[in-house]
Amino acid sequence: MSTTMHAPRGLEGVVATNSSICYIDGERGILAYGGIDIHELAENSTFEETCFLLWNGRLPSRSELEQLGKRLSAERKLNSAIIDLLHNAPDNALPMHVLRTAVSALSFYDPRETETSNENGNKGSQHEANQETAIRLTSQIAMIVAAYDRIRKGRHVIEPDPSLSHAANFLWMLTGTRPSATAERALDIALILHADHELNASTFAARVTAATLSDMYSAITSAIGALKGPLHGGANEAVFHILEEIDRVGADPVEHVKAMLAQKKKVPGFGHRVYHTEDPRATHLRQMSRDLGKSSGQTKWFDMSHRIEEFVKADKKLNANVDFYSASTYHTLGIDVDLFTPVFAVSRVSGWTAHVIEQLDDNRLIRPRAEYIGPAYPQHWIPIESR
Amino acid sequence: MSTTMHAPRGLEGVVATNSSICYIDGERGILAYGGIDIHELAENSTFEETCFLLWNGRLPSRSELEQLGKRLSAERKLNSAIIDLLHNAPDNALPMHVLRTAVSALSFYDPRETETSNENGNKGSQHEANQETAIRLTSQIAMIVAAYDRIRKGRHVIEPDPSLSHAANFLWMLTGTRPSATAERALDIALILHADHELNASTFAARVTAATLSDMYSAITSAIGALKGPLHGGANEAVFHILEEIDRVGADPVEHVKAMLAQKKKVPGFGHRVYHTEDPRATHLRQMSRDLGKSSGQTKWFDMSHRIEEFVKADKKLNANVDFYSASTYHTLGIDVDLFTPVFAVSRVSGWTAHVIEQLDDNRLIRPRAEYIGPAYPQHWIPIESR
Repeated sequence: MSTTMHAPRGLEGVVATNSSICYIDGERGILAYGGIDIHELAENSTFEETCFLLWNGRLPSRSELEQLGKRLSAERKLNSAIIDLLHNAPDNALPMHVLRTAVSALSFYDPRETETSNENGNKGSQHEANQETAIRLTSQIAMIVAAYDRIRKGRHVIEPDPSLSHAANFLWMLTGTRPSATAERALDIALILHADHELNASTFAARVTAATLSDMYSAITSAIGALKGPLHGGANEAVFHILEEIDRVGADPVEHVKAMLAQKKKVPGFGHRVYHTEDPRATHLRQMSRDLGKSSGQTKWFDMSHRIEEFVKADKKLNANVDFYSASTYHTLGIDVDLFTPVFAVSRVSGWTAHVIEQLDDNRLIRPRAEYIGPAYPQHWIPIESR
Repeated sequence: MSTTMHAPRGLEGVVATNSSICYIDGERGILAYGGIDIHELAENSTFEETCFLLWNGRLPSRSELEQLGKRLSAERKLNSAIIDLLHNAPDNALPMHVLRTAVSALSFYDPRETETSNENGNKGSQHEANQETAIRLTSQIAMIVAAYDRIRKGRHVIEPDPSLSHAANFLWMLTGTRPSATAERALDIALILHADHELNASTFAARVTAATLSDMYSAITSAIGALKGPLHGGANEAVFHILEEIDRVGADPVEHVKAMLAQKKKVPGFGHRVYHTEDPRATHLRQMSRDLGKSSGQTKWFDMSHRIEEFVKADKKLNANVDFYSASTYHTLGIDVDLFTPVFAVSRVSGWTAHVIEQLDDNRLIRPRAEYIGPAYPQHWIPIESR
């Protein structure tokens, strides 16, 4: 017999699954991967090491980390058909639409995908195969974002450099210039901070998709589609559009935000369903935004952001979230505003794939119910001439 | 303050949202769209009328139905870049991967998509725009499936015929032959039966994606990825692979299934999380499979299916679900086995889009929680030489 449980709207506060990947304490403002606090990881770890931690639940040994670096690096070559697809996207296509389409097309060139996944398959070997696909996707998504930005600007695609870290190689392929140690480390930290966040909407979309025993490409394509939304990853782009507008018209940042609030507009980059204190990622991103502003001699984006933050905190009792300071941070790193959400995906693919691996290791179809509130059953079909 | 509610695995029995679209009573075996029983719709309605019902919650007037038919028909032209994308897919690509990629790429050619969706936008006009996109996607997904099947077989793409119904035009573009009235009506009924099913996994994936205020293309791309899985739409292909194998080796169907069960293999096409009686869609599909077998003079697929159904019902107390008889039905209609799930998408896009419209009319981000069961917080980052 089925029992029914009515959940709050948006499944708020509903525990949909167990997970070993990410710990969040929204009351105390704690975020940890595999039990290790995000502050320790941001200070000491690298994105590659963080990927290993998310995929394996523990830090790697030196040889494991070297091996993962080599495997990620070996996946840096994009299939020429994917390059063609990026060339064929029209000029006005949104980068998130292009990324979603290119990642979906990646499945064509993975020999594992020409056979349908088999739920009766050997679980151990499937776990291994999923880890391989996770490495491939994590590497290739960064290549797609960098290559697409070059292509749409009419520039040549830069060859990857296997000697560089994931973060440095991404900046190299994006800009065609060797990044400074400061820029490399800043992006590396940003990638660590964005890598996972438990059952956020895009990760949940990935798990719902994977739970039908569909494939990893389907799951990550779903996640990219969900991340695009302005209530999720798209918020960092929305934040920068406001900063740009303030800069363009020479407005006072606080007056501009007051006017937005008076028009009942939501200020993006503030508040979070899970955190009731400061988002621990915002702590680091604020510092990075400040430091990058100083070192680049362009402090206006941080200054503007900081004034808005102080006002919204005082006036609306809302804390800045991960998206708020990532906007000024990415801009100062030389990343175009419409790549902010794609860069979020470059990081979050590590967490998405970790969650898909975990889902498939102990799967159950995710299929809730709806409460029917439409015309009472039974209505009747009536011939069109009698309607 | 947040309260936490622990949901059963896979959100089984959890009411995740209210919905006016689809009524299911799993105990009594009732399925209804807008309150009208699926049996009445299968007997009397058309796919176009069913689309209107799903999108508007009521049956259309004659002029409304004519207008919808014209709008669907006007969207039958695929952009040449989409045709190119279908040509460029490698020979061994899975049709569901190709469909997911092509639908994602459709977003490039929708002028509404070059601007990011705006949560502060006018709700009424957004509802209208969503309805337009629903019509476009419903029409174009059928075109993509038909065109891709032609292209991969080295045949020319058939021009759509605006005088034909959605079902007849699909068969025409797929086969290059005018379908018989029987074949047209059989596909039309199959499209009606598969059009919606409340919060099934692919529809839920679409709603989770849309609820970030991402776009309709992202939502439907997610749904296609979820539908592909063998625990969801992919099951109809799995059913036919078993029928083919039985036919190829000349096995007794019941002995073959017994051997599968002895190897702890799941028999696809049986059981349903929601129905505890017969799936009302199976009632119609069984009859269609029988009728089409008789009219085509090829009764073996129905006969084999029927023997398997009787055995599994007696032995495992499991009822055939929507996927079981759609396999033999689609095969007898001349549809290749690896198009069965794409044809499911040709129908279900109507329900997916109805749910996305409903979600966006009264949106809330869908973001549940996970119960952390990994290494206890706090673990610590330790230098690599000390690991």
